[in-house]
Amino acid sequence: MNQITMKLQADPLLLSALREDITSEDVSTNAIMPADCCGEVELLCKQEGVIAGLDVFARVFTLLDETVHITWEAADGDDVKQGQRLAVLQGSIRTLLSGERVALNYLQRMSGIATYTRRVVRLLEGTGVRLLDTRKTTPNMRVFEKYAVTVGGGCNHRYNLSDGILLKDNHIGAAGSVTKAIQRAKAYAPFVRKIEVETETLDMVREAVAAGADIIMLDNMSHDMMKQAVQIIAGRAETECSGNVTAENIAVLADTGIDYISSGALTHSAPILDLSLKHLHQI
Amino acid sequence: MNQITMKLQADPLLLSALREDITSEDVSTNAIMPADCCGEVELLCKQEGVIAGLDVFARVFTLLDETVHITWEAADGDDVKQGQRLAVLQGSIRTLLSGERVALNYLQRMSGIATYTRRVVRLLEGTGVRLLDTRKTTPNMRVFEKYAVTVGGGCNHRYNLSDGILLKDNHIGAAGSVTKAIQRAKAYAPFVRKIEVETETLDMVREAVAAGADIIMLDNMSHDMMKQAVQIIAGRAETECSGNVTAENIAVLADTGIDYISSGALTHSAPILDLSLKHLHQI
Amino acid sequence: MNQITMKLQADPLLLSALREDITSEDVSTNAIMPADCCGEVELLCKQEGVIAGLDVFARVFTLLDETVHITWEAADGDDVKQGQRLAVLQGSIRTLLSGERVALNYLQRMSGIATYTRRVVRLLEGTGVRLLDTRKTTPNMRVFEKYAVTVGGGCNHRYNLSDGILLKDNHIGAAGSVTKAIQRAKAYAPFVRKIEVETETLDMVREAVAAGADIIMLDNMSHDMMKQAVQIIAGRAETECSGNVTAENIAVLADTGIDYISSGALTHSAPILDLSLKHLHQI
Amino acid sequence: MNQITMKLQADPLLLSALREDITSEDVSTNAIMPADCCGEVELLCKQEGVIAGLDVFARVFTLLDETVHITWEAADGDDVKQGQRLAVLQGSIRTLLSGERVALNYLQRMSGIATYTRRVVRLLEGTGVRLLDTRKTTPNMRVFEKYAVTVGGGCNHRYNLSDGILLKDNHIGAAGSVTKAIQRAKAYAPFVRKIEVETETLDMVREAVAAGADIIMLDNMSHDMMKQAVQIIAGRAETECSGNVTAENIAVLADTGIDYISSGALTHSAPILDLSLKHLHQI
Amino acid sequence: MNQITMKLQADPLLLSALREDITSEDVSTNAIMPADCCGEVELLCKQEGVIAGLDVFARVFTLLDETVHITWEAADGDDVKQGQRLAVLQGSIRTLLSGERVALNYLQRMSGIATYTRRVVRLLEGTGVRLLDTRKTTPNMRVFEKYAVTVGGGCNHRYNLSDGILLKDNHIGAAGSVTKAIQRAKAYAPFVRKIEVETETLDMVREAVAAGADIIMLDNMSHDMMKQAVQIIAGRAETECSGNVTAENIAVLADTGIDYISSGALTHSAPILDLSLKHLHQI
Amino acid sequence: MNQITMKLQADPLLLSALREDITSEDVSTNAIMPADCCGEVELLCKQEGVIAGLDVFARVFTLLDETVHITWEAADGDDVKQGQRLAVLQGSIRTLLSGERVALNYLQRMSGIATYTRRVVRLLEGTGVRLLDTRKTTPNMRVFEKYAVTVGGGCNHRYNLSDGILLKDNHIGAAGSVTKAIQRAKAYAPFVRKIEVETETLDMVREAVAAGADIIMLDNMSHDMMKQAVQIIAGRAETECSGNVTAENIAVLADTGIDYISSGALTHSAPILDLSLKHLHQI
Repeated sequence: MNQITMKLQADPLLLSALREDITSEDVSTNAIMPADCCGEVELLCKQEGVIAGLDVFARVFTLLDETVHITWEAADGDDVKQGQRLAVLQGSIRTLLSGERVALNYLQRMSGIATYTRRVVRLLEGTGVRLLDTRKTTPNMRVFEKYAVTVGGGCNHRYNLSDGILLKDNHIGAAGSVTKAIQRAKAYAPFVRKIEVETETLDMVREAVAAGADIIMLDNMSHDMMKQAVQIIAGRAETECSGNVTAENIAVLADTGIDYISSGALTHSAPILDLSLKHLHQI
Repeated sequence: MNQITMKLQADPLLLSALREDITSEDVSTNAIMPADCCGEVELLCKQEGVIAGLDVFARVFTLLDETVHITWEAADGDDVKQGQRLAVLQGSIRTLLSGERVALNYLQRMSGIATYTRRVVRLLEGTGVRLLDTRKTTPNMRVFEKYAVTVGGGCNHRYNLSDGILLKDNHIGAAGSVTKAIQRAKAYAPFVRKIEVETETLDMVREAVAAGADIIMLDNMSHDMMKQAVQIIAGRAETECSGNVTAENIAVLADTGIDYISSGALTHSAPILDLSLKHLHQI
Repeated sequence: MNQITMKLQADPLLLSALREDITSEDVSTNAIMPADCCGEVELLCKQEGVIAGLDVFARVFTLLDETVHITWEAADGDDVKQGQRLAVLQGSIRTLLSGERVALNYLQRMSGIATYTRRVVRLLEGTGVRLLDTRKTTPNMRVFEKYAVTVGGGCNHRYNLSDGILLKDNHIGAAGSVTKAIQRAKAYAPFVRKIEVETETLDMVREAVAAGADIIMLDNMSHDMMKQAVQIIAGRAETECSGNVTAENIAVLADTGIDYISSGALTHSAPILDLSLKHLHQI
Repeated sequence: MNQITMKLQADPLLLSALREDITSEDVSTNAIMPADCCGEVELLCKQEGVIAGLDVFARVFTLLDETVHITWEAADGDDVKQGQRLAVLQGSIRTLLSGERVALNYLQRMSGIATYTRRVVRLLEGTGVRLLDTRKTTPNMRVFEKYAVTVGGGCNHRYNLSDGILLKDNHIGAAGSVTKAIQRAKAYAPFVRKIEVETETLDMVREAVAAGADIIMLDNMSHDMMKQAVQIIAGRAETECSGNVTAENIAVLADTGIDYISSGALTHSAPILDLSLKHLHQI
Repeated sequence: MNQITMKLQADPLLLSALREDITSEDVSTNAIMPADCCGEVELLCKQEGVIAGLDVFARVFTLLDETVHITWEAADGDDVKQGQRLAVLQGSIRTLLSGERVALNYLQRMSGIATYTRRVVRLLEGTGVRLLDTRKTTPNMRVFEKYAVTVGGGCNHRYNLSDGILLKDNHIGAAGSVTKAIQRAKAYAPFVRKIEVETETLDMVREAVAAGADIIMLDNMSHDMMKQAVQIIAGRAETECSGNVTAENIAVLADTGIDYISSGALTHSAPILDLSLKHLHQI
Repeated sequence: MNQITMKLQADPLLLSALREDITSEDVSTNAIMPADCCGEVELLCKQEGVIAGLDVFARVFTLLDETVHITWEAADGDDVKQGQRLAVLQGSIRTLLSGERVALNYLQRMSGIATYTRRVVRLLEGTGVRLLDTRKTTPNMRVFEKYAVTVGGGCNHRYNLSDGILLKDNHIGAAGSVTKAIQRAKAYAPFVRKIEVETETLDMVREAVAAGADIIMLDNMSHDMMKQAVQIIAGRAETECSGNVTAENIAVLADTGIDYISSGALTHSAPILDLSLKHLHQI
């Protein structure tokens, strides 16, 4: 994760998470360690997967104490194995103990998403289809989860409601038709952003092409209908397939000729990757 | 969720999540709807499960516009079915469209946790063993996730590092022995909080009992060792079993005679419950 | 300004501005008015122009006291004249006095921008060229200033660095060439956002078209060169003219055939529109 | 700007402005520069004027990355010329690109105010009259704009409603008379703050003197009336002339014998000073 | 306390204090009251004194739940007696229980200060000397403590370092002399604020008068020296006596002819006034 | 105070306190010192007592300027004497002057509490009874005041409403009986926290023991009744005596055989310890 996003967006969230876990003091650690001293601990992988979020993991500790030093033995995007050592941390033992859970909560979740994403991406290898995430992210975790998707090899759809236009069924209903919705969007936001429209029938697809949509989402269409839609569009817009896409059903979608497949499951249902801090000792 | 926790802890997080999703404006909605008008939309369940977080779902909308009105057809803790209507929302269509994703992201995740928790709780029915969550929650989601666990029938372990003492292997190592760790904890925090200690061998269990631990955690022990540990403790402390507990392996733990089983999976790996807003129309 | 943007983005800034002006109390008002009472005051226009920001003006008062009531006699976008009454405010006299300056500081600045923008837009009338703002806004005022530009009839360029791609001379230099810069942008952010590139020569224009830029900015080009550039592009990308554009020199640019002209002066150098609260009296 | 004001007041505003411009990431820069590297860029002046805000300009970059190093070739208050190099910045190219616009937006605006202020101050040279600013500042910019006025040679009027008493027409109306207003102010805030009262007629002036005002503002008076007012006051209070004062009409006010002239235009209508970052290259 | 100061300055502090006391939930109350219901409780005085801060007390509850209703039987500034009922509160019992301690912590402390201040003010009755507070307030409590001083009959000295000039021994040392310090202050801040200087000898007093100080503080002087100082000043500046002034030693200072006596003890050492909520019952 | 609590909880409060005291700039200091320079100043004790809060005192200065250097001549918990030098500070004179009051306000208050606490603790020496604080702390000062109590030799009761259960008269009333209240608490919060119940009669004591309370508070009981209560409890629960305990009346409580005595006066009514910064000089 680039350092500017870290300072501007991640830092306030990391501090908030630390304050969620320590509202007055870490009673256990302070009870046991009346004086502070320097220690070392290892970050171990307990499960096969893809690691993502090492910078975030490190930042949790350095926000508590900038003298914590980490020697990395892995990098974001690496395939990691059970038992593999990923890093050695040196610093105040109090800091290592008090920051452990929050740091791991971020790293485990981000790595879980990267792991799941890479698994899906591999199912699409050779097809030319690219995998997209959605806005179905955990609240206050989007900056971390979207990053983890890219580490896993996926692409990011729009970041939020402000940086992309996606006209859904409800928008089209409110506007009156696909054509009117696209016209209004072009009038309102003529610059910079592409206009994407969600379609459920081939007629809607035809209308979207005619109205000049930049991207056409094929939502919950059957396999055959999707193929027909791609033929109708014929390169005049980019195409995205959407609707309950998971690792289990994605392969079959790839031969429809679409450009992108989006999957909410990447961020809302990936299990974590199991990691832990072990072998703490004084140095 | 009680209204005081909602105002003091949830509101700032909900606003932060809304600002994560709308950094300037909802371009799509504002393009389509130059003037605002009143509409109605239904909250539908797309999957069988347990619903949790309806107050939070509602609060996302009322933080944007206090005139949104919701008619509930379900309550937190209800078993819900695919296709079931859970609520009807009435209010400004702009608000309904702009708040939809954030509100659903909370509700889906909380309901996913309640669903998974209830499934595990049912596996323990009749055993007298109670199910606990852990601190392996998603950052900045703890207040929501711990609540969802209780809706599913689980109990909450300590909320954070400040309101409970849990002496883990690293604390015991730093103190020198189980006995010394417990003594220091009693000297440092003599009041209000129970002292829990993590043990990995029967000798540690014996030492913990002798030193007066209030709660003894049996960490990653074999089934037989756990039974022996419970016999050694003989009611002189509460007992908690911990270590990669999931729905798949929990039943077998119940006959060991322990009081509590804790499972991080409740909060870190439960998939979401699929829900959606449908049938938006002007009124 | 839509109410969701008001609550999520404007409110924290308005409160910060009020706290900038009242760090402990409004000493003058509290000294004079030991008890509060109800009053009425008029919002008067002291200069011809375009009014913009009435919602923001109102919100400053209602953040202090939600019972302030305003009867509007003008709406955002109206051409207003010297001496014209725009609104009558009723409420606690203390609130009217204490909120006056901050409310006017917003309204005067926003109306100044709308006034200047409309003046420039009128110079382009009939040409088909659309006027754009830039990111040269006053810090912490962007959401207000971009809105004022639209009230004046201008269009908004990207909101910030996160919702649009604009490859400037420095980016092109870092990438090595126009082509490489565009390729990297397409690889990094393949979705949702259009890619705009800044060009200074006709060769750069040709390269940008070939590399598939969505928008080509013609930066500080001569009148003739701009015409040639438009012919080279031939509709294969949108075109934007940029570089010290002001009301004084804009007309001559319109016949070059470009689609958009952007002007930083709209937001960084428009003088305010003079407005005041007058005729306060008790009711 | 002194470092304590910078840390306590400026830093939160600078961070807010950076977050206004980067809500997720600087997409263009991150696309072009997959890896970071060190670069150098020059701060150039494109227009004659007075420079103000160099510390603030620098702080924007160091808040993003404390290793940015700046070699100054000018100082706040210097008269600068078109084409003059003011500084050389060295640091991460990503930081230089991502911080550029926000840093310039502050520096251009502050320098514009200093430039305009110095122009007006020079019109008063030799008269003994001192120039004051007002509270007509841009919201959330007061600490920067008031500082820029002093760099230009002006003096600061009260900072806000809490640190000075100024009894305006509305206050006097509410109190019943000039005398009563001053009496109440003396009773309410007997200490530390001077009491200033706004007058529009010579009778009000006489009443203000009799009631013991510390400062008397002559608001929108004719040239002759102002002279008479100064004679009536005869040194028993300080005098301030106010009311649509600009560079165009200020000279004629100086011979009235008043002590201070205040002008809202210094902060609400000064155009920016044009500056830019140029010649970025890798080092 | 006026409502604008309440909203802008007090509200964030009250919320912070509530979050200090409730970091996740009020476990006791939520355990006992699974469902909410309406109740009534009385605010009782357990000690003779002066009540101050009733608005703040009320605001703590209404920030949690705006439907709490309070019937007042006393007002700020009233002399109250042991056993006297001051108010009856009606609302959600959960809110009454959860807000009780924070509301009382404010009210008890503010009333303690008002009580102590009135006691000292009465010792000065008939002397014409006015009592001032200082900046020796409890951090993050100044807005409440300064208000309580005025309720007790005291006057407020400057609010903070930004709204008043007080040149202390260290400032004079840094400037070189009393005269130079006053000259620099007049040059730097010529407007709005009075200049006060701290003196320890009669020579310093003479120098301060000659240099035109507005207020002269006589710091830790003997009784005789103070009398002489007042004679030297002879009405050419206001006079303030300072230095470990308490209820025990203040009377003897009054005959020195000084205008003001300041006492840090008003805010830093007043014991609280004992108050409680009693007789909670369901309604 | 441990560094993690300092960064997470104390820092935001210290910054808020500094901003309370400096809302724009330290006018006096900036007037006197146009350029900054390096100086030295001594922290002196003006009264006998116990020092507490030196880290907090230091942190106020380093938040303003991390180059301030302090040479300590005392440590938290030391008995200090009138005239004793506690530390020498070196750094920017502006920082030393501008941070002085806030730093002393914290240190004086914390040391006052430590001084008072130790005085009371000494009255209990040899009795085996331990002294507890309460939640009657100054709002937004709890983390500092609870720490000061431990420095003085006291123990901390629960930190807030979230980390301990204390069933008071109002809770018992709401539940219906002592037994029901304890049962509900055990059902609601079965883990980690001890359950304390407040009793006023011997019958309530008996009921509390029978229901399995972990801690029984004897509230405002007579000396004899307290002795009886302790005999009834007979070690089956810990015992706490509460109710207007002060240094004046505490000794007589110690022979009742109770385990703990709690006193709100430790935090709500301890006078400050007088300290000052003296002998500032340039170096």
